Amino acid sequence: MDEDTTAGAFSLHPQLAADCLTVGALPLCLVLLMRDARYPWFILVPARPAVSEIYQLSDADRSQLMEESTLLSRCMVELFGPDKLNIAALGNVVPQLHLHHIGRYRSDPAWPGPVWGRLPALPYAPGAAEARVEAMRAALGERLQWPL
Amino acid sequence: MDEDTTAGAFSLHPQLAADCLTVGALPLCLVLLMRDARYPWFILVPARPAVSEIYQLSDADRSQLMEESTLLSRCMVELFGPDKLNIAALGNVVPQLHLHHIGRYRSDPAWPGPVWGRLPALPYAPGAAEARVEAMRAALGERLQWPL
Repeated sequence: MDEDTTAGAFSLHPQLAADCLTVGALPLCLVLLMRDARYPWFILVPARPAVSEIYQLSDADRSQLMEESTLLSRCMVELFGPDKLNIAALGNVVPQLHLHHIGRYRSDPAWPGPVWGRLPALPYAPGAAEARVEAMRAALGERLQWPL
Repeated sequence: MDEDTTAGAFSLHPQLAADCLTVGALPLCLVLLMRDARYPWFILVPARPAVSEIYQLSDADRSQLMEESTLLSRCMVELFGPDKLNIAALGNVVPQLHLHHIGRYRSDPAWPGPVWGRLPALPYAPGAAEARVEAMRAALGERLQWPL
């Protein structure tokens, strides 16, 4: 049975689990940090099984997704001061609904193109990804559930 | 003065005007069709001046943007039956906030990559873009204001 048609509990897609660190959980979404030091790159994953498109969420979940995306966006602007945010639900490779939030700079290596498929992920220096995760946990504050 | 800091009336960015046909107006957004026959590719542009990020919209406008994105998504699925939708606010080149909605197919020339910057736009055959615009106007129905 395809994982995306499995009724029942939500579980994070193994590709997202492999590519990311977990920041914590907001009321709807898991918050992840992509393991790519080139960009501050966070991902929201609605904790709902068998959803691959935003329009498939309930009205209440869509509103909550927008609220959590806005909260994450504001924290990213505060922490990283990007020139632009790139926000996208693609899912051509990983069908589980996930919403990318990428802080972009005129000086970054993919600018002004999108980041996907351009350059291999650059590993973080030891401790740097964990420090970024901790900074985001502090910015999200009590709105974030952590540990899960 | 930079166009994005000009107070006053909304006007469509000239690059979007050049690249797209106008479908009509929803309560918040202009609906555009990108002139690229490779993909069914529509764009929502909130008719608000000086906004480049979703989080800069008011709460009410953000809710409305989500509602209009969902409406457009459902119409695209109904009309074009894509394998996946790609929805994105990038804006690295054109800073006026605009939300891409692209119907993707496993058989399309950029699959599974994103569409931006991969291939030059393929012009529509004569009348084909206008037919696609008319089909979307019919699907959006009375929710769409047209003519403007």
